[in-house]
Formats: sequence, C-alpha cells, structure tokens
Amino acid sequence: MYRNFRFDVTASSGRARCGVIKTPHGEIKTPAFVFCGTKASVKGVFPQHLAETGTQIILSNTYHLFSYPGADHIRKRGGLHKFIGWNGPMLTDSGGFQIFSLGYGSVADEIKGRRNGVSSLIKTDEEGAFFKSFRDGSPQLLTPERSMAVQRALGADLTVAFDECTPYHVDKIRTEQSMERSHRWEKRSLDEFVRENDFSQALYGIVQGGVYFDLRKRSAEFVNENSFFASAVGGTLGSTKEQMYEVVEATVKELNLARPIHLLGIGGISDIFEGIGAGIDTFDCVHPTRIARHGGALVKAEYRDCKTREHINLKRSEYAVDDNPIESDCDCPTCRTFSRAYLHYLLKANELLALTAIAVHNVRFMNKLMEEIRTAISSGNLKETAGKWR
Amino acid sequence: MYRNFRFDVTASSGRARCGVIKTPHGEIKTPAFVFCGTKASVKGVFPQHLAETGTQIILSNTYHLFSYPGADHIRKRGGLHKFIGWNGPMLTDSGGFQIFSLGYGSVADEIKGRRNGVSSLIKTDEEGAFFKSFRDGSPQLLTPERSMAVQRALGADLTVAFDECTPYHVDKIRTEQSMERSHRWEKRSLDEFVRENDFSQALYGIVQGGVYFDLRKRSAEFVNENSFFASAVGGTLGSTKEQMYEVVEATVKELNLARPIHLLGIGGISDIFEGIGAGIDTFDCVHPTRIARHGGALVKAEYRDCKTREHINLKRSEYAVDDNPIESDCDCPTCRTFSRAYLHYLLKANELLALTAIAVHNVRFMNKLMEEIRTAISSGNLKETAGKWR
Repeated sequence: MYRNFRFDVTASSGRARCGVIKTPHGEIKTPAFVFCGTKASVKGVFPQHLAETGTQIILSNTYHLFSYPGADHIRKRGGLHKFIGWNGPMLTDSGGFQIFSLGYGSVADEIKGRRNGVSSLIKTDEEGAFFKSFRDGSPQLLTPERSMAVQRALGADLTVAFDECTPYHVDKIRTEQSMERSHRWEKRSLDEFVRENDFSQALYGIVQGGVYFDLRKRSAEFVNENSFFASAVGGTLGSTKEQMYEVVEATVKELNLARPIHLLGIGGISDIFEGIGAGIDTFDCVHPTRIARHGGALVKAEYRDCKTREHINLKRSEYAVDDNPIESDCDCPTCRTFSRAYLHYLLKANELLALTAIAVHNVRFMNKLMEEIRTAISSGNLKETAGKWR
Repeated sequence: MYRNFRFDVTASSGRARCGVIKTPHGEIKTPAFVFCGTKASVKGVFPQHLAETGTQIILSNTYHLFSYPGADHIRKRGGLHKFIGWNGPMLTDSGGFQIFSLGYGSVADEIKGRRNGVSSLIKTDEEGAFFKSFRDGSPQLLTPERSMAVQRALGADLTVAFDECTPYHVDKIRTEQSMERSHRWEKRSLDEFVRENDFSQALYGIVQGGVYFDLRKRSAEFVNENSFFASAVGGTLGSTKEQMYEVVEATVKELNLARPIHLLGIGGISDIFEGIGAGIDTFDCVHPTRIARHGGALVKAEYRDCKTREHINLKRSEYAVDDNPIESDCDCPTCRTFSRAYLHYLLKANELLALTAIAVHNVRFMNKLMEEIRTAISSGNLKETAGKWR
C-alpha cells in the first residue's frame, strides 16, 4: 500500500530515536522539523535557500490552497512540487485544523484556550464542516473525502486524515464524542485514500482525545489498528507546558513504534527536546518564520537577552549598535553577511530584506538544531546538547 | 588626487565605448548599471544574490541615510560597505536631488514636469538647502560641505558633488541662475573633498543647464575644468524621450572623454541604448527594483505583451495559467525555479516572495543587458543587440 515509502529507525537513546522516512521526493532524516509554507511559500525564502540551509521537508495548508488558488488549479500546473519549485518531500495537512481554529477564534486563541474570535465556521455535522471562504465569503463544505481529493490533487508526498479539531474549553464527554467523530472521519479518509491510491502519497492518522489519557490510549489504538503510514499527535495538549509534555508522552507510549510519529503545530526549542525525549520524530510550526516577521531571531541559550524567550527581538534599541551577527557560530547567509545593528536598522526602516534575512537565519537555526539532535541521539549525549540549545 | 582610481577605455564603436573603472572595492566594467539601494538595501535582495546575478555596483541615497540612521551611526558601524554586507564598489549621491524633488513634489512629478506635491523644502539660499526631516519633521540644513562630510562618513567609493536640482517648469533665466549656483556649490564640494581626501573616494561633478544646449556646454566646460574624477549628466532632460536623447547627446559631446560619464536616474532599456550611443558609461535608476514590487518583470522584446512597455505585468489574469518562466532563456534563480503562474499567484496572495523573486530577475536582466552591450560594442554589432533587447 505504501510501496514507495519506508520508515527505518537507525539509532535510539531511551525513547528518543533517529530514523529515515523515504518518500518519492527523497529522504527525511529524523528527528526533523517541517517548515510551514502556508500559502505555498515559506514567506520570503527561495526554495534554493531552504535547501542550502538544510531544509528536508516543507508543508502547505490545504485550507488556504483549497480557498485560493484551488486544488484543481495547482493540479493543472503539475502539482504542488512543480508549482512552487520545491523538489524535496512535502506534506499537506487535512484543512480541518484551520477551519476549526479560525472558526473558534484565532489559532493562537485556540492554542491558548481563549474563545473570542468571530466564527467563519457555519456548522459541523456527520458529513463534514461547512464554512465561509476567507477569500470571498462563499459557503464551502469540507468532508473527509473532499480533503483527500484536494490533497491528492495537490500531490504532496505525505498527507493527513481529516479530523475534527476539538476545542480546549469543552468537557470530557464532548471531547470523547469529538474523538469518535474524528475516528469515523479518519476511517472515511483512509477508505478514500485507498480507493485512489497510486502509490505517490502516504497517509497520516491523527490521535485525538484531548488531555484525557484514557481517550488518548483509545485514539492511539484506533490509529494503530488502521493502515495509516504514520501517526500524528493532534488536538488539545493542555493549558501548560507540563501538561503538554505529559499528554505527548502518554500518547506516544501507546503508538505503533514501527511508524513515524509527528507532533502537530509544536516548535519551541524546549518543546522539541521534550517531544524527542518522548519519542516524537517530526515537528511542524509556523513559529520560526512567523517571529522573523516581527524581528525575532532564534538563538541558542548563550546568546539570549531574556530567560523566558528562545529568541532575541532585534527591534530592541540595544541592537542598534551591536556589530555582532545574530549568532557568532552560525553558518547561515544572514549571519555570514549582516550584523544585528544592520538588521535592527532594516526593521526600523521597514526594509523588506529584514524579514527574509531573519527568516533564513531561523530556518538554518532549526535545521542545525535537528542535525545536532540527531548526532546527539546516535552518540548518546542528548542531555548535553539540550543544555546548549534550550 | 585619485591615486586609487582609474578609468580606461578598452573598446569603442562610434561614440559608444567599453571601459573599466577601478575603485578600492574592485572594478566596474562599463557600460554598467548601478542598482539603487536607497535606504542601504536593494529592496528584498541579499548582497550575495546581487553578486551572483552579475551586479558590479550599487548606490545608496545620502538624503535617506542622513535622516536615518545618520552618517555618524554608519561610520561607527565601519562604513556603508561593512554595514550592509556589500564588498563591491558603491556610490552615494549628494542628497540634493531628493531634497529638491521631494520639495517640488514627488520624484515622478518632477521627472514628468508636474508640480503638485507638498513641500518639505523650507528654503534654499547661497549657503545650502533647508528642509524638514522625513523622519521627525526636524529642521535640517544640507550644504556642499555637509554633503561631502556625510558622504565621507558613509565611505562609498564614488561620491557626487552637491548641486541644486532645477525644476522643469522654470524658464531659461532661472535655469541659468540655478546652474551657476550649482557650479558654486560643486566647487565648494570639490574644495571640501580635497581638504579631507584620503584617497579612498572619488568625486563626480554634475552637468546642469536643463534643456538649453548653450547652458549644457557651459556646464560641461565647468566640470571639465575642475578636477573631478568623473562627470554626471543631471538636471532636467526635457519633457519627451526625443528631447532627452538630444540633450544627453549634446552634453556628452562637450565632456572630457578621458573621464567616466554617468547619466543620473535613467534606466529604461531604450534610454540605455540611446545613452550608450551618445557615449554614456554608467546609469542608475530605481525602475528595475521598483516595478518588481508592483509585479513588473523586465523582458526582452520577444516576450512582451504590449508594445509600449519594456516589462510584463505578472498581475494580469492571463499569467495565472502561464507555466513558462518570465523569460525562457534567462539564467536567474527566479526563472530557473518559478513559472509566471506561480509568481502571479504569489502576487495575488500577497506573498512576500513575489517581490524578491521578481526583483532578482530584474537585477539579472539589467546585468545581462549590460554584459551583452559590452560584448556588442567590442564586436561592433550594437544595432543587432539593440533589436533583441529594446
């Protein structure tokens, strides 16, 4: 069923492990970070520079591309890889997360458990999710079958089953009902995937169940029992970092370890070390490229100006006269060329180059982090490496 | 006086010529195009990618840097080259053009002879120009001596004497008076330049005189008689292309041909061929990078969709389904990676990458144009080359 795909574990240390995911567009050495090219572009960064800075895989969001320019348009252009000029592995999500999170409020609201956004979600029933297009307000319906058809047209290597994203604020009964609907939708996704399978794509199942260990166990069992290529940990992970780490650890313990395991939407440095310690293989998050657009440059522990942040804010006035690169030991084009003082100036002068330059650094930072983590797992010194980075 | 600078003519065909300008930061093969990094950055383009696409020299605007972050700030950062990460030849203008053109209205208004902008120029007297800072509205004075001190602090290889930019709408008497003031200011610039000369910079004189051939002749003689390293053709060149070409031709005829000759602020493809035919060595213009930000991609004659434009507008709906690169025979990173359809999509989706990608193409386009012009001058087939490009 997944004859052009493979996952091999190559080293391990405790539950942490190194592996290789083989796809028709190349290999992904894990642990790996998946960069967000939400609207078919990692904002401001050439595909060539993604590759040069060690990027193995990028994702695009089905929800955004479904709304514009449309999956059929991209299929006619030769598929997502050809359309965007990226010939390495790609992942698309199911579109569900955006519909629900934009429906409940902003993604940030959702992650933080707030509920004050204006809904664009019209209603959800057993069939699927009805919502208004963010482009033109037209009514749209996304179902498991439609999500799979859209992802098939987009043509990414890795695809994700359509699930219901359970809001944080609901109780256990509602979480369980939502999880069960997710399982039915994921089953329909898998059936649709199998029906149209041409061996160019592989499918991830998603584990739901919120913060409830017994539900997580049941959901992991559901994913294990169905012929997904890989597993993704989704849904609400709790209201604190500690709870998130506990939920992730409890979930991964129940999963089939012969399959790759992805943690959806998490990308902080500490979070990554915790996730890897629990057995996570891949991560994705908009964080590295999003903070770049606000002047945030990711730095290792020794370069930080504040204990509560994993980045420095180059807009701060102290950087106006700082002639050092973002990180003295970074080999990225930005650190080889520009000082913090110049980047500070570019941000203050509203110059476009600031955003691209900081994004390129943050991409290199995440890739270098994952490289060092892979080396550390193989050589058994993950703890020392963590001390340097987190 | 200019012991670290040299200009050698290496080939010629009629009045058109090839040459080499030697500077402390490397050589410039002429004819050459000077790219505008107005606020110390060619918008959205890494210095490394400027170099990789054949860029020889960039300029920054004294007016903008004087207002923010200040010349002294850049001097303390090690000068402009170090600050921006560009180790090739650089030019700064005198700041005069921006003060006057922003004072009379927009630069475009000024070039086109309109007069409807809001003035930020307070007054001009023999001392210099009083104006309000665009940053904070504070009153500022720019004089020939101050312009030279600012350009010295910035540290570009090539600097320009401070002149008065004569508006288009004035009569011959006012044009002559303005030209004479420019000559006095340029002489003061030169005196100040000589006083502080440390052999790291060279100075351009500017020929004024508007559209009046006798004034242009007098102004050219003034520039020739003073020990400028090179000559620049400035001021109003007329209201039509034909008048511009006539004024440029008449001016260049009067200039010392042992010196490089720059045409200020002109960068259309046809304009460049006309200028080169008249004996111009270097050009600068915001056009290639400015139109990129509006979806305009420069293309050779065969790729155009409209006879009156030297670029295609990638926002046009026909490009949504055009799977070709901007130019099939272009070797730039954008044309090697992206289709017109993808660039069209990025523009419509407001994705940052569109602006950078089109700018990179336009930079490569201009550099390739100048490369082919240099070859054509050496081999005597400038006319055939012009037929392909204009």
